Amino acid sequence: MFFASDNAGPVHPKVMESLVKANADYAMPYGSDPIMGTVREQVREVFEAPEAAVYLVATGTAANSIILATQANPWETIFCSRIAHIHEDECGCPEFFTGGAKLTLVDAPDGKMDPDALKVAIEGEETRGVHGPQRGPVSITQATEKGTVYSLSELKTLINIAKSYGQKTHMDGARFTNALVSLGCSAAEMTWGVGIDAVSFGGTKNGLMGVEAVVLFDPDQAWEFELRRKRAAHLFSKHRFLSAQMQAYLTDDLWLELATKANTACARLTRGLKQTPDTKILFEPGANMIFAEWPRAGHQRLHDAGAQYYIYSGALEGDDPDEPLMARLVCDWSATDENIDRFIDLVKG
Amino acid sequence: MFFASDNAGPVHPKVMESLVKANADYAMPYGSDPIMGTVREQVREVFEAPEAAVYLVATGTAANSIILATQANPWETIFCSRIAHIHEDECGCPEFFTGGAKLTLVDAPDGKMDPDALKVAIEGEETRGVHGPQRGPVSITQATEKGTVYSLSELKTLINIAKSYGQKTHMDGARFTNALVSLGCSAAEMTWGVGIDAVSFGGTKNGLMGVEAVVLFDPDQAWEFELRRKRAAHLFSKHRFLSAQMQAYLTDDLWLELATKANTACARLTRGLKQTPDTKILFEPGANMIFAEWPRAGHQRLHDAGAQYYIYSGALEGDDPDEPLMARLVCDWSATDENIDRFIDLVKG
Amino acid sequence: MFFASDNAGPVHPKVMESLVKANADYAMPYGSDPIMGTVREQVREVFEAPEAAVYLVATGTAANSIILATQANPWETIFCSRIAHIHEDECGCPEFFTGGAKLTLVDAPDGKMDPDALKVAIEGEETRGVHGPQRGPVSITQATEKGTVYSLSELKTLINIAKSYGQKTHMDGARFTNALVSLGCSAAEMTWGVGIDAVSFGGTKNGLMGVEAVVLFDPDQAWEFELRRKRAAHLFSKHRFLSAQMQAYLTDDLWLELATKANTACARLTRGLKQTPDTKILFEPGANMIFAEWPRAGHQRLHDAGAQYYIYSGALEGDDPDEPLMARLVCDWSATDENIDRFIDLVKG
Amino acid sequence: MFFASDNAGPVHPKVMESLVKANADYAMPYGSDPIMGTVREQVREVFEAPEAAVYLVATGTAANSIILATQANPWETIFCSRIAHIHEDECGCPEFFTGGAKLTLVDAPDGKMDPDALKVAIEGEETRGVHGPQRGPVSITQATEKGTVYSLSELKTLINIAKSYGQKTHMDGARFTNALVSLGCSAAEMTWGVGIDAVSFGGTKNGLMGVEAVVLFDPDQAWEFELRRKRAAHLFSKHRFLSAQMQAYLTDDLWLELATKANTACARLTRGLKQTPDTKILFEPGANMIFAEWPRAGHQRLHDAGAQYYIYSGALEGDDPDEPLMARLVCDWSATDENIDRFIDLVKG
Repeated sequence: MFFASDNAGPVHPKVMESLVKANADYAMPYGSDPIMGTVREQVREVFEAPEAAVYLVATGTAANSIILATQANPWETIFCSRIAHIHEDECGCPEFFTGGAKLTLVDAPDGKMDPDALKVAIEGEETRGVHGPQRGPVSITQATEKGTVYSLSELKTLINIAKSYGQKTHMDGARFTNALVSLGCSAAEMTWGVGIDAVSFGGTKNGLMGVEAVVLFDPDQAWEFELRRKRAAHLFSKHRFLSAQMQAYLTDDLWLELATKANTACARLTRGLKQTPDTKILFEPGANMIFAEWPRAGHQRLHDAGAQYYIYSGALEGDDPDEPLMARLVCDWSATDENIDRFIDLVKG
Repeated sequence: MFFASDNAGPVHPKVMESLVKANADYAMPYGSDPIMGTVREQVREVFEAPEAAVYLVATGTAANSIILATQANPWETIFCSRIAHIHEDECGCPEFFTGGAKLTLVDAPDGKMDPDALKVAIEGEETRGVHGPQRGPVSITQATEKGTVYSLSELKTLINIAKSYGQKTHMDGARFTNALVSLGCSAAEMTWGVGIDAVSFGGTKNGLMGVEAVVLFDPDQAWEFELRRKRAAHLFSKHRFLSAQMQAYLTDDLWLELATKANTACARLTRGLKQTPDTKILFEPGANMIFAEWPRAGHQRLHDAGAQYYIYSGALEGDDPDEPLMARLVCDWSATDENIDRFIDLVKG
Repeated sequence: MFFASDNAGPVHPKVMESLVKANADYAMPYGSDPIMGTVREQVREVFEAPEAAVYLVATGTAANSIILATQANPWETIFCSRIAHIHEDECGCPEFFTGGAKLTLVDAPDGKMDPDALKVAIEGEETRGVHGPQRGPVSITQATEKGTVYSLSELKTLINIAKSYGQKTHMDGARFTNALVSLGCSAAEMTWGVGIDAVSFGGTKNGLMGVEAVVLFDPDQAWEFELRRKRAAHLFSKHRFLSAQMQAYLTDDLWLELATKANTACARLTRGLKQTPDTKILFEPGANMIFAEWPRAGHQRLHDAGAQYYIYSGALEGDDPDEPLMARLVCDWSATDENIDRFIDLVKG
Repeated sequence: MFFASDNAGPVHPKVMESLVKANADYAMPYGSDPIMGTVREQVREVFEAPEAAVYLVATGTAANSIILATQANPWETIFCSRIAHIHEDECGCPEFFTGGAKLTLVDAPDGKMDPDALKVAIEGEETRGVHGPQRGPVSITQATEKGTVYSLSELKTLINIAKSYGQKTHMDGARFTNALVSLGCSAAEMTWGVGIDAVSFGGTKNGLMGVEAVVLFDPDQAWEFELRRKRAAHLFSKHRFLSAQMQAYLTDDLWLELATKANTACARLTRGLKQTPDTKILFEPGANMIFAEWPRAGHQRLHDAGAQYYIYSGALEGDDPDEPLMARLVCDWSATDENIDRFIDLVKG
């Protein structure tokens, strides 16, 4: 019963096979491997963007921060949700890689940036001429850090605001595919179709070993990205092993299959929890992650049974068995019905 | 016949097996995987350094530049050879990660820093008080970028100079094990035994997929290193797959076996070339890399036969079949006698 | 009638005289001028800190940001009020000079950081281990950007919170002396007496041409500060002309005299406005700056008469003569009673 | 007898008068002062560049490093002489302000970059694709750090090389006017006339208190420069006092008059030294600075008489009275014939 994070799950066997297959003989390093040629075309096809520049890096923080360094000048401020991964979980990497840009935090009650709050935040910058930071890119996380999913129309609203101020847009898609299958739209529709300029197209949380694709719909930024990637030490010599993961991911719709599995598992978990007395689901789960609270006694039973997940508010230790504690539960592609049902049974007690 | 680089060779099967084995079930992310616990002890044992802080990153540039950022203040200058990887091949990553430190280049005719030149270089800095950069760490590449290997006594001479000025020392060990088996000494002897403070202990060029261990003999710098690694986006969520590579590498002396294979292949290639008329070996090959020159006609024959390697001076295109062109030839663990002998035959013509 | 800013006022004649006097003959550059020797002792005496390291720079942003870069590591976050100058008016200089540190914004309804909010903010960081920023220094502006002044006990409360987490503290004293004369305490009491580690001791806004002293109560940080100052291009060759300003400033209590003048002028302005119908003073003016609102018609009269000041909310243009617009009014040492009274008369209409 | 540096001399009385005159009443801050409007036009006229963007900063390091940060990307390398001020005397400020760019050092035996060496240096970069730094701007010091002056044709040769690679060019003109009056050409001829893109037009070493003008012939870079200046803390609130200095400097040809005085003094000193037995002038003095060597005994006599200057090689202490020691002698506008003659007499003994 592991629901701590989708970044702790196993790699899909097809990805391992692809790695083994890629291991034959020599391959030119640093992205000149032939598999990368294939992957570039696969990504362009998936995004219906034949001109897009496509790169692979090994961590989501690298994808996000190198893109943002390419989009933002050092004297600008990046707009993001108050709970964005780039703000809370990258130890200042965007600030570092941009050369000291700021982040302007936008309220996002359920993980989704409030459009009015975004507008106010943007209006609030560049009011002091040279003294304050200038307006930089808007970064949107899809699916959000709260497990919610922006609808296409919600995305469009945010991006139209950004565009009306001439700003660039970035999508942090660490759980891109979970959002995509949830919306049932195409990758193009969820990105450049609504005005996204660059995407961190995550794979690690969805069955890969450690690969995120960077997709720049404006190829003019490609060379700058390459130089920034290299000087951030994120250009891999044995690059074929990044390529091989992404190749397997995009072959025979494996990426969609894995996200569908994770989402389906999460839906089962959500349904089960909803039928559990005293359990409260906190946001509208749209992908593969739920925030929910139930009484301490349930958490205690789970803990004793070895379940792994994070308690976000409150502490397991405590006297009152009825006090509600909030948990975050994440399902990856390998979550089993058996474990989910057992988990629910333990919550019920 | 591939001699372009050891970073283009395959991963050893035992490493692939270790990855597959590590793939079972869930594992806590970001270095909290149980395999990392084992690896930490393995590395400490290999280096006979029970207190050392041990970390894994995926590229040599990351290992070098994050260590140097930990050792050097932004207002310092790092001393290294004029042809050091950190100067020539990291696109300014050390300058970036340190926040703008300088590199002072030291002559190194055969890849090894000249001790007198190092002394002069160190003396030449900090002569201008607050106006010039201050003296920072000395970074030594072992084996060197010219394929030569410092003897222990040569290392000691350089490091004693550094230490006499109170400077820290770093070893870029992208080809650490190739040097080690060449010298026939222990990892301890080649590092802290001669006064090295921190090592980039390379694995990628010696049969891994993409892992370098960072070994800090002074554990006081450990937490700073962790923060710098994270904010440079080099902390991996599915870290077990880095751990698994290093685990296999250090089990049953695989690391030594692979470097021995590469060095032996290189020695065979060197011997063959030496017996070839009109061929000149440029430096004393100590590890798995040779720089040599022979007439254009030989290069042309190799090229027509599909051999892959870099020509460092001169161009394949040209009228004079007798003009000598300089090549760099690198052997990895998977180089075969057959290919080497065929290569030599083609040089001979 | 100029109330736009105290940074637009003239230099006091004694300061000009001191500059002229300092101009005789040659003087060693870069802070080795003999006047600096005197100034260092004057500052130490004023602050009753015989061991303090004392430096001069020419802008407040330089003083603040170089101090903060000395106090904060790149992976830390600096705590400051939501309207702090270092956040709003330095175009990201602290982020730049620290190498990418973050700023955590603390609510400060009347310009003063709320202690509970500070505590919550500090508690909110370092909850994510290596993933989030670490706790860095707390920066306090005295007098605040809203013209209010922390009492000694308010300062102590904030600093005790900072100290309980082991954090360093910085005082942005662009209007240091205005606060000091307002409180009627000593410089020592307002700084290290309550636990401040480093001060930007402003002079420019209080009658100098362009000098701020940096006072580091911990001299261990002195050399690092000097190097950071130099490499930020803030070490002046003809440094004697910075020294000469500060010398005049601290001679015969000129600094106190000037701040007293500015504060007195501001009190007169405040009194006058309070007696004006429909005028509202927004914060408790403690120094030389007021935020107040009155009807548009009054602003229109002032504008027509050539008065200069900033309207902070609302716009002069508009139909409704009764709509209140908020102004910021700053008095410098050279403000005259005549202009103040005339200003008040125009508000009254 | 002060020949240590022209940055230690007094401010010209006309400049002090201009400061006093500028001190009346209030003036809008941050470069919005009316004097700056005049200065901008004066500078444009002097440089015959009606479209140029013109800014003032207070130190030469600020002028150089902010310009270079505007011209160079972080992944580029700046080409300069091995003894350039930006390399030796700015404590890494260009590296810091650019975000980690490199400096490629070019041989310059007499202070002037050797064109062949520049070409070789430029050719030597960008040979490693994304792995090495990319070619950035070329920075030329006029007059040089050795007191020599590039002829217009020498400048043109260097700049043509830079332009043939598409590189930008910067002139470090800390002693701009000394070079200008030496060549007897116009400011336009010495800058954009030969292809310079941006100039640090020094004033501090030539009679100002602390002002350097930045002249960007390409106004497209103006706004970026302004933001970089601000976030480096080099935008002055009481900017009128920078403007006032530059205004006096450019009025009635004061700048030319002062440089002529300094150069004439230096020529007298050179002539005198040349007629002194055992004295050797090391470079061809073209401006206001000489490097010369003469026996220790002469240095000892000067030292005893209180002369101030730097000994660059050798030490005053020593047994052999005949050993030659090398001195650097700099004349500023206020150097007197009397002191020069007395100096020469002491060298003669």
